[in-house]
Amino acid sequence: MTEVLFRSDFTVSLVDVMGNDERVCQAARVSTVGAQSLDTGESGGLINFLMKNRHGSPFEHILMTWMITAPIFVWREYMRHRIASYNEQSARYMQLEPVFYVPGPDRAFIQEGKPGHYTFVQGPVEDYTWLVADIQEDCHYLYSKYERRIGRGIAKEVARITLPLNIYSSAYVTMNSRGLMNFLSLRTKHEDSMFPSYPQHEISVVGDQMEESFAHHSPLVHDAFVNNGRVCP
Amino acid sequence: MTEVLFRSDFTVSLVDVMGNDERVCQAARVSTVGAQSLDTGESGGLINFLMKNRHGSPFEHILMTWMITAPIFVWREYMRHRIASYNEQSARYMQLEPVFYVPGPDRAFIQEGKPGHYTFVQGPVEDYTWLVADIQEDCHYLYSKYERRIGRGIAKEVARITLPLNIYSSAYVTMNSRGLMNFLSLRTKHEDSMFPSYPQHEISVVGDQMEESFAHHSPLVHDAFVNNGRVCP
Amino acid sequence: MTEVLFRSDFTVSLVDVMGNDERVCQAARVSTVGAQSLDTGESGGLINFLMKNRHGSPFEHILMTWMITAPIFVWREYMRHRIASYNEQSARYMQLEPVFYVPGPDRAFIQEGKPGHYTFVQGPVEDYTWLVADIQEDCHYLYSKYERRIGRGIAKEVARITLPLNIYSSAYVTMNSRGLMNFLSLRTKHEDSMFPSYPQHEISVVGDQMEESFAHHSPLVHDAFVNNGRVCP
Amino acid sequence: MTEVLFRSDFTVSLVDVMGNDERVCQAARVSTVGAQSLDTGESGGLINFLMKNRHGSPFEHILMTWMITAPIFVWREYMRHRIASYNEQSARYMQLEPVFYVPGPDRAFIQEGKPGHYTFVQGPVEDYTWLVADIQEDCHYLYSKYERRIGRGIAKEVARITLPLNIYSSAYVTMNSRGLMNFLSLRTKHEDSMFPSYPQHEISVVGDQMEESFAHHSPLVHDAFVNNGRVCP
Repeated sequence: MTEVLFRSDFTVSLVDVMGNDERVCQAARVSTVGAQSLDTGESGGLINFLMKNRHGSPFEHILMTWMITAPIFVWREYMRHRIASYNEQSARYMQLEPVFYVPGPDRAFIQEGKPGHYTFVQGPVEDYTWLVADIQEDCHYLYSKYERRIGRGIAKEVARITLPLNIYSSAYVTMNSRGLMNFLSLRTKHEDSMFPSYPQHEISVVGDQMEESFAHHSPLVHDAFVNNGRVCP
Repeated sequence: MTEVLFRSDFTVSLVDVMGNDERVCQAARVSTVGAQSLDTGESGGLINFLMKNRHGSPFEHILMTWMITAPIFVWREYMRHRIASYNEQSARYMQLEPVFYVPGPDRAFIQEGKPGHYTFVQGPVEDYTWLVADIQEDCHYLYSKYERRIGRGIAKEVARITLPLNIYSSAYVTMNSRGLMNFLSLRTKHEDSMFPSYPQHEISVVGDQMEESFAHHSPLVHDAFVNNGRVCP
Repeated sequence: MTEVLFRSDFTVSLVDVMGNDERVCQAARVSTVGAQSLDTGESGGLINFLMKNRHGSPFEHILMTWMITAPIFVWREYMRHRIASYNEQSARYMQLEPVFYVPGPDRAFIQEGKPGHYTFVQGPVEDYTWLVADIQEDCHYLYSKYERRIGRGIAKEVARITLPLNIYSSAYVTMNSRGLMNFLSLRTKHEDSMFPSYPQHEISVVGDQMEESFAHHSPLVHDAFVNNGRVCP
Repeated sequence: MTEVLFRSDFTVSLVDVMGNDERVCQAARVSTVGAQSLDTGESGGLINFLMKNRHGSPFEHILMTWMITAPIFVWREYMRHRIASYNEQSARYMQLEPVFYVPGPDRAFIQEGKPGHYTFVQGPVEDYTWLVADIQEDCHYLYSKYERRIGRGIAKEVARITLPLNIYSSAYVTMNSRGLMNFLSLRTKHEDSMFPSYPQHEISVVGDQMEESFAHHSPLVHDAFVNNGRVCP
């Protein structure tokens, strides 16, 4: 019998980066100095000026490619971001691996309040234990049915239709830093955002991991983003 | 106990249309006659010329809005089309209805051949009967577990993570006719396509319904699309 | 000798509209009520909520098509807005009309202050008179040279290369209201903008005219845009 | 008196590249093998398969940034390509340099035939000499008037409105290889194109230079593009 695996985390592997803080400045300076923009100058102030005044286009010259593994319900939200390039694995062409998401112990999962005003709170530990077992039961059940259908010659694209939304899938994603900041402004949660956002926990963890590599490679751009209220320029 | 419903079809309701064959011609003529382009002239020949020579931009001035209801595995493919506007219902904010897709009796579901070269063939009727019952069993099972979780106060956005990919969801979609022709060239199946495409059956049925209203409202553009090998201009 | 015409205004003719305040609400409600979203409800509050919280996608279902006539230096800025559809007349295929822009008497044209901090002030009337005559002289000179080249059989696409940036050109433009609000936030000038913008006067006049028809057809969306600091959602 | 310079060529400097043939294959393989797609395999055949069958998305993971210097009438066509990132120098913020385009001796400039069917032929050498002198005369005239206006304190954004379309301007451009192939399919001229295109000579020279660096960095992708009739995937 196939072993079914459970994870509560996500893989966010940076594959490649093009451009950096200095490239943004060069691209911005071309508007005021023309072809001489390759000369360097003070960068932090210029980047902050661009961010604050929402001159967004220079930030499109930083590009990042990731390989990301996340459950389908995360990908569903992720792919609403249209200014990005995606290649995702296809359950039409391959049998999906038996890897499923379960909430980790720190995931607040009890909903309180009324529509438009609820918050999520941490449930009692026995409820968490029950919930995880309940989810795992479904995954075992569904994956074994999926395998049985494939074993009977059912087309993979049909066999997969009752796979659950928490099965993992992998994709290549390329975004420029302007698109990334838009993603982060909507899909991560921070007290100091000028426009507060209420993303689902799981995509915000993916977003946090993307933000970490972004901050590492373009520290001045990232600082300016944070210092100006996390508003996408 | 909640009644679970099964469908094998999709809802594609045209909500609104802007522009038509004549608008495409007006937009195209502006390049050769300027602001006088509102004068009318012979349209079929001009549209065919634009299509054949892949002058695509005039086709962006025909816009259509649909309300579409389809299973999530169809939406997953649909939303890879980025030059479009979407608003879909959210299982974070509402409990999804118990409506699930099962293949209809005409859906070829047995896969034959090897990777890259398979075809789908109609299975024996007893296999079809078994498959439908097998899928229905999963849906009953999963929806009752979904309801039980919600009944125990689990956040909707967590409770839903083992819902299957064949549950139905609804969305507003707005596309221009250039984006639509790109969609149709990739997501419908026609012998006479210059670049053959192998879409999953279910999205091709959605595509066929969209194409029907497109052909009705912009017959000359649609004719030119078909007569030029269904190549998106 | 060809008569050369001078204008200080711009033509912004609304050709068509699709969608309105109510459509935005329907598209937004689908996320919380699914396919029942066609039911009507109170709209102003919902639209304000969407705008304030930057839920931008429902605003993509209002679409507007314009025929606009403006000088090339305005089109150069205009076409930096990429989420829009354009068909402009082409000086490769037709001889451009002898119509040129001159600043109107209310156009502040004297630059004061240093880079990054200048303002424009109204010059003395004799300077204005001189400036207009100076510009007109260039246009007469250049258009007659343009015509002479064409008369000698020079290809139109070559003959036109010394036409000046203030010659008028016409285009069809289709934008959705989200793209339009982004355009207005950057290309019009208002005291009460959360993020102040410093557009060139001429494009701001075009923007004001577009805004007028937008406000007329989607008054609740426009009100919410204005009341929330003219921030594009 | 300011020296006015004339050029017949264009600067196309490659600033940076991200991704290559192998990246395209990795991104494509993720659909059939999931997260294991980093394993290498035979690339040429896969790339040709993707190109021929118009599976375009994997080509979005090759990105290139250029610094390009070209006349404004070239930029006007260039910027119609919306799936790209631009930062161009601004005549609102800086005085443009006195550098202008004149056709080179190999530029066919006489138009023969009727609308929709003309060709350009090489004119007699005395016509060419006249044409170049005629264009140069305009540039001297206009640049000196531009400088005089600026000298009188006229705002740069107003002073520049009679500058001609053949003045040079510089911009940073970032495109992915899918957008680039669309650009090349429309803006370069090749006998073996499946869909023939009739670009203006000057932008085709810019396109040829871009294509050269593209072919150098992603030779298998470029080969597949050429071998499949230069159809953008």
